[in-house]
Amino acid sequence: MMARKITHDEEGPYVIDEDELEEQGGTVAVCQCGLSANKPHCDGSHHAVSDEDDGVVYEYSDDDDEGERTVVSDD
Amino acid sequence: MMARKITHDEEGPYVIDEDELEEQGGTVAVCQCGLSANKPHCDGSHHAVSDEDDGVVYEYSDDDDEGERTVVSDD
Repeated sequence: MMARKITHDEEGPYVIDEDELEEQGGTVAVCQCGLSANKPHCDGSHHAVSDEDDGVVYEYSDDDDEGERTVVSDD
Repeated sequence: MMARKITHDEEGPYVIDEDELEEQGGTVAVCQCGLSANKPHCDGSHHAVSDEDDGVVYEYSDDDDEGERTVVSDD
């Protein structure tokens, strides 16, 4: 399984309503990889995880658009 | 700032559409605290973060519904 540790500092949910769905053309893509700079919306950052190794947990640098990362555990 | 490290293993976004919005009564609440067991949907788990200390980064146990947590950094 691919995995990474993401720091969250929000204290409550983001509510998506009809207006937002319309603004975004009928669908809203929600970030699940954790790397989007525009959370909770997807910004395509998940492409950076495609070459993660199975069984390894990474941390990604916040300031680095090139997806620099370190290994934090390797089972 | 309150904060916690959350392990993500998803590799792409979750797409919310009109049908889901209807099913959920017109709004969808998306987890931002990172603790929901029903991600990307909010399940109310964010209540566990209300007594986090500022400037401390926590990790929460996955298996513990009581929100047991450890301090991983304290600036």
